[in-house]
Amino acid sequence: MAREGVAMLMLEDTEGKRDPAVRWLSGQPGDALLFLSVDKRCALVPWDINMAKMYANAEAMVPYSEFERQPIKAARALAEFFKIPSGSRVEIPAVTPYPIFLKFVEGLGDYDVLCRDGGASEEIAALRAIKDGEEIRLYREASAKTNQVIDLLEKKLKAGVFTTETDVALYIEAVARDKDCEGTGFETIAAGPTRSFGIHAVPAFTSNPFATQGLSILDFGLKYKGYTTDVTLTVCHGTLTKAQDRMVSLVRKAYELALGLCTPDFPTREISLAVESLFGKAKKTMPHSLGHGIGLEAHEAPLIRSRADNEWKLAPGMIFTLEPGLYDPVHGGCRLENDVLMTEKGPEVLTRSRIITI
Amino acid sequence: MAREGVAMLMLEDTEGKRDPAVRWLSGQPGDALLFLSVDKRCALVPWDINMAKMYANAEAMVPYSEFERQPIKAARALAEFFKIPSGSRVEIPAVTPYPIFLKFVEGLGDYDVLCRDGGASEEIAALRAIKDGEEIRLYREASAKTNQVIDLLEKKLKAGVFTTETDVALYIEAVARDKDCEGTGFETIAAGPTRSFGIHAVPAFTSNPFATQGLSILDFGLKYKGYTTDVTLTVCHGTLTKAQDRMVSLVRKAYELALGLCTPDFPTREISLAVESLFGKAKKTMPHSLGHGIGLEAHEAPLIRSRADNEWKLAPGMIFTLEPGLYDPVHGGCRLENDVLMTEKGPEVLTRSRIITI
Repeated sequence: MAREGVAMLMLEDTEGKRDPAVRWLSGQPGDALLFLSVDKRCALVPWDINMAKMYANAEAMVPYSEFERQPIKAARALAEFFKIPSGSRVEIPAVTPYPIFLKFVEGLGDYDVLCRDGGASEEIAALRAIKDGEEIRLYREASAKTNQVIDLLEKKLKAGVFTTETDVALYIEAVARDKDCEGTGFETIAAGPTRSFGIHAVPAFTSNPFATQGLSILDFGLKYKGYTTDVTLTVCHGTLTKAQDRMVSLVRKAYELALGLCTPDFPTREISLAVESLFGKAKKTMPHSLGHGIGLEAHEAPLIRSRADNEWKLAPGMIFTLEPGLYDPVHGGCRLENDVLMTEKGPEVLTRSRIITI
Repeated sequence: MAREGVAMLMLEDTEGKRDPAVRWLSGQPGDALLFLSVDKRCALVPWDINMAKMYANAEAMVPYSEFERQPIKAARALAEFFKIPSGSRVEIPAVTPYPIFLKFVEGLGDYDVLCRDGGASEEIAALRAIKDGEEIRLYREASAKTNQVIDLLEKKLKAGVFTTETDVALYIEAVARDKDCEGTGFETIAAGPTRSFGIHAVPAFTSNPFATQGLSILDFGLKYKGYTTDVTLTVCHGTLTKAQDRMVSLVRKAYELALGLCTPDFPTREISLAVESLFGKAKKTMPHSLGHGIGLEAHEAPLIRSRADNEWKLAPGMIFTLEPGLYDPVHGGCRLENDVLMTEKGPEVLTRSRIITI
């Protein structure tokens, strides 16, 4: 903030504008504004003051209702509280819609309102991309729990315990909580052979059969102390068609290729391009990114995709997914996804998701 | 569009920027851009072209990957496809962040890029606030299913079938799918007596006990053919403290008061103010809005809150929640929420959520 001459920064974590930086910095698990001043003061404006008293840590905590639930009123009051000199730069989240930006400019008349890409929210997101020792320790625990669930799932799938997509999805929900997780990190996708062609099956799970003849996809994560894992299993049942066999073997190859390229300082765009080129040679296209960082969000920095504007490089401490997948409206889909920790020595695969044959 | 001189409109329904207008207008259940021209042409740019072929209806459907997954490239190509004359107004969603708005202005150099409150996306949202006959029919079905679940829950709660918050939340997930719903409309909140003080308990449900001595809150909705219901039950177990009794009776009173004020053309702000005044006289504060419209989103127009800028009035065809609630860190929380259809003759309460005593 000092470098860029920003006197006060506002962060917002609300529905539709989730920013886990608020939790990361203050402890408040959600629905709050957080104000930081360049002289290291900090004020939280939570929707739920009772929850803030239990979880959060900030110099001042003022319920949002005191500002008639208006972010601009809160910003004005906190600028006064921090004694921010008029004319100073006040930064608001880069995701602020243009019409609301205009209202901030009007409502904070004395201040220079900043709303920009590459600003403070992005810098904090970039800081969050590299996990510290405590976060890595949490991730190892979350991954161990995830691996136990994967083993249980494989056993039960082989025993034919699950009939429908709902059976398997709700089993994961229940076992997550038994294992002291907050739950799943996002809505579990359980897509049986008739629906596995969808990248994100809609609805995420139904009373359709799961793990019957063909390819089924199961994509889930466990949320543990705020942090979520993210893995995808493919379940192959019965004799696959030639096209299905080919998809499965290409996805395996792509996964190994991607993992082999993970070294510190390597551009994530190049890993993605390598996988896309492998698929391209087989006349296949992957309709989504190769992976993404994970943490307090199911998708966070670093980006792992082939778009020309992706300038991310791997660095020790990053935790991210690799999830090559191929989809076909007739033959179904196959995706393999694991969570990888970048270390100085190379990639460490934390989760043990796999392609299961039953 | 013609009235405001808008030649092309872009709508976006993606993660973090959900706009069900895309589904409402095209049938595509999510992850897509939709372009409309003033001469009534329509093009869909879906992430998942296979899903679009199954669900969507548009003059042209082009996978997002054709535009290297860049919205501005897509907008430029579609403007060309629609033969939009240069200099015309092109409207983008009002939620577009300011830095991205600047990129649109640069990338669509020949066009006049519009991004505004009260623009086309809001007009469509306002149109969606008033449900048509088919939507009301769907809502009656969804409400009937919800009421069956409420009856089942009451029976099982009285029989002591559920032990933990997870038990009850996952029971709803499973029964939703048995009843041919897409699932729940949002993450079910099941908060036992130790956690019911939170407006939105975090996590939404845990292995803590549910419906033991004191006040428990259960907030859920069923999603049926895209539309979600939204109800909250409070479960009172055992002899309540005087403070708990008072909260329960105030919430009941507030609910009846609000319902009694629902007539066509009545400002929703005044209903909210009446409830807040009732609570205020009892030295209590409700830390959230009195209600909200429901539909393809769990929260949509109309607003039902007391903020000075709320100018919504009730109109026949609107479907909305009324959900007065009070919360206390020591005594727990109580909320009663039902879904109401505004008719010419008065409010019709579609769901039968209630305060259950066991």
